[in-house]
Amino acid sequence: MSVKPSFDVEAITAELQQLLGDRLSTSQAVRDQHGQDESFHPCAAPDLVAFAHTTEDVAAIVSLCARHKTPIVAFGAGTSLEGHVNAIAGGVCIDLSQMDKVLQVRSEDMDVTVQAGVKRRQLEEYLRDTGLHFPVDPGADATLGGMAATGASGTTTLRYGAMRENVLALKVVMADGSIVELGGRARKSSAGYDLLHLIIGSEGTLGIITELTLRLYGRPEVEASGVCAFDSVQNMVDAVTLAIQCEIPLARMELMDELAIYAVNHYAGLDNEVAPTLFLEFHGTEISVAEDQRRFAEIADELGGKGFKAASSPEARKKLWQARHEALYAAKALNPGKKGLITDVCVPISQLAQSIADTRKDFDEHGIIAAAIGHVGDGNYHTTLWVEPGDDEALKTVIDASRRMVERAIAAGGTCTGEHGIGIGKRLFLQAEHPSAMAMMRTIKQALDPDNIMNPGKVI
Amino acid sequence: MSVKPSFDVEAITAELQQLLGDRLSTSQAVRDQHGQDESFHPCAAPDLVAFAHTTEDVAAIVSLCARHKTPIVAFGAGTSLEGHVNAIAGGVCIDLSQMDKVLQVRSEDMDVTVQAGVKRRQLEEYLRDTGLHFPVDPGADATLGGMAATGASGTTTLRYGAMRENVLALKVVMADGSIVELGGRARKSSAGYDLLHLIIGSEGTLGIITELTLRLYGRPEVEASGVCAFDSVQNMVDAVTLAIQCEIPLARMELMDELAIYAVNHYAGLDNEVAPTLFLEFHGTEISVAEDQRRFAEIADELGGKGFKAASSPEARKKLWQARHEALYAAKALNPGKKGLITDVCVPISQLAQSIADTRKDFDEHGIIAAAIGHVGDGNYHTTLWVEPGDDEALKTVIDASRRMVERAIAAGGTCTGEHGIGIGKRLFLQAEHPSAMAMMRTIKQALDPDNIMNPGKVI
Repeated sequence: MSVKPSFDVEAITAELQQLLGDRLSTSQAVRDQHGQDESFHPCAAPDLVAFAHTTEDVAAIVSLCARHKTPIVAFGAGTSLEGHVNAIAGGVCIDLSQMDKVLQVRSEDMDVTVQAGVKRRQLEEYLRDTGLHFPVDPGADATLGGMAATGASGTTTLRYGAMRENVLALKVVMADGSIVELGGRARKSSAGYDLLHLIIGSEGTLGIITELTLRLYGRPEVEASGVCAFDSVQNMVDAVTLAIQCEIPLARMELMDELAIYAVNHYAGLDNEVAPTLFLEFHGTEISVAEDQRRFAEIADELGGKGFKAASSPEARKKLWQARHEALYAAKALNPGKKGLITDVCVPISQLAQSIADTRKDFDEHGIIAAAIGHVGDGNYHTTLWVEPGDDEALKTVIDASRRMVERAIAAGGTCTGEHGIGIGKRLFLQAEHPSAMAMMRTIKQALDPDNIMNPGKVI
Repeated sequence: MSVKPSFDVEAITAELQQLLGDRLSTSQAVRDQHGQDESFHPCAAPDLVAFAHTTEDVAAIVSLCARHKTPIVAFGAGTSLEGHVNAIAGGVCIDLSQMDKVLQVRSEDMDVTVQAGVKRRQLEEYLRDTGLHFPVDPGADATLGGMAATGASGTTTLRYGAMRENVLALKVVMADGSIVELGGRARKSSAGYDLLHLIIGSEGTLGIITELTLRLYGRPEVEASGVCAFDSVQNMVDAVTLAIQCEIPLARMELMDELAIYAVNHYAGLDNEVAPTLFLEFHGTEISVAEDQRRFAEIADELGGKGFKAASSPEARKKLWQARHEALYAAKALNPGKKGLITDVCVPISQLAQSIADTRKDFDEHGIIAAAIGHVGDGNYHTTLWVEPGDDEALKTVIDASRRMVERAIAAGGTCTGEHGIGIGKRLFLQAEHPSAMAMMRTIKQALDPDNIMNPGKVI
């Protein structure tokens, strides 16, 4: 689809100023800040940045832009990783970060309604005394609207699911400025087309999420941790597979490969054995957690585990997981001033060990040094490929490596993105992964956004 | 949308006969058998019944019908409950029941690919020796394609989710005869629009599901049961709420109200205490199940439970759950020759006790005798309103009662259908439940099926 529409910036500016007053910014600094996320994609500043406070604000801004056929990009915390917010066609950025109110917690129904700009950690803090928690944890302190828009997930998806499984209802502003309410608070429904899930993960290209109702969970009585090194990635994956087949209800199950462990040891002065290592978290009661730990230890012992270590007290748990927590800092410290291209393939778990081995071999052949860290229970892992800004040759090298990694993942029945989304960065891969579905995606985009004003140039 | 297209039956018959030979039926008996499901909606026979063996068969039949602008209705086991398969606009019924092959079980990835006509019990049988199982259990021995098409769920949804959460990938024939593959075998993906969930629950109005890849689970080491009567529905719901907040991982949690218990006692000569009763199932290891039972018993004791009874051996479990298993037979035996209108509201659990109480009061006021049975952990319950065929006055009485029940559920933040779908029976309620989303549903239907040939007159 074309991403270079023409529109009358001056006319829109005047109309938006009348609507929003000083909540409209034309300053270069604000525009630049809104023109990029945390990825390596170059900044593409919007022409204007509008700060919304209500769903009605968003609807009014979108109506106005629709009239002027002007591109609209929604912006939350700017923590996305595939250039989702970069305004590559210019236009109006709608900043939702000031829509940061937790509207209602319903303890009995275990759900909460929030404005789209509420951040993940803010919600956790808000829920602290309720005995409830919202478990989806993508790492970054993203807004919940952004997490829904990109179909985010993370370390706890194994147990609690991704955003897809934890959004009950949405309020969305569509491309014509209309406000729709999708889903509902009943825990299940077969009433009509599932438009809720069509919007989740649509990256602002079909509508803008302004309000969310999320599923909450009882905070576990006991949270405990475990760590286990293995003699090979294959044995580690076999242990993970067996643990899942045995329905051990693990809350987190994170992989770090040898290189990741080596880097963290070097950075943080740790002395972890340099071997593929699993970091585990168990949620339950004292008795059930002990049982889960015992069962996992048995499996690990059988399958090349080098001794399962467990911990329950907060201090001991922190120490046990230190390597995992420091991983990102270690990688950043080892690559000062560089930007990271973070890969995000996800494969059926039977293909995971081979996928990691092939990636390692490919990187070795091309002189790329990058550790693998992943959500091993889901078959999803990341490598960060570091590039000096301006070094076009190095950028080409890592983009090519990323492409080969994706091609191998798709050939193995996997996906180009487990949790980061398509944005700008993965549009070509979407075609390779879903060749027969692309026409249907385009039909739906065309039907719901005929003038292609909603985050144009993203996804499709 | 209009549901009375005109099309040339003779021409289509000739062309389909050439395509399918004796796999095309024009016999009145076969057509009648395909013109109704298990609901009270009157039979509406299709003009022709085509038996498909492959996805390519379905694509060829749909292409032909598309050319002739002829309605198409997909048919599996005919166990739906809202007139989903009734050919109210005539046309061609595509019977998928002979597409009954389990194509591939992948134990390591814990998934299975099946043709759409494979039935639930057939799959359970097929998986018996693998240590894996597919848990979605709507009661009826439906086809898996039909279960996905209607967004089915059932007694185990609390623990394992509905079809929505357990379909990984679909092969679908769209209205133009094209074949698309949606979703994938990776356990999570953020790649593009979620068309998989758009098709799940679309009731054959957007496309016809011909192949499914489903998520499997490890068969639990131990399955145990529990039963507990309560002094009131409110206390029972409070106990259920607390059990969920405490994250007790119950596999099934079924409610029978006093009237349901009374009917079963009468029918099967049982002596259950006539009180609202919970039927529970626990999945896990010996230690974890004992822990879960202990925790539930504690909660029940605190909240008006009349003594929690547990059982582990198959015989003792069967005896304990006998009332629940006999419930449907009891209801049918008490209403010989009658057809049932089965209601299906689902409300936030905080509203459940009141919803059941209001329903009971309404039924009493209108002289309706109908027990309530439900999946209490999801807030979903059913009542069966029995009507003598031909008794139009009685039919009007129960349709009115059903409407009031739905109106109260929607007012309480719930849905007109927790698991049965819209079909013919609930179209008007869909508008009431999702007023702001209806336009979007129509836009998508129009975009994907512009000639309205896919199961016309259903859903919207």
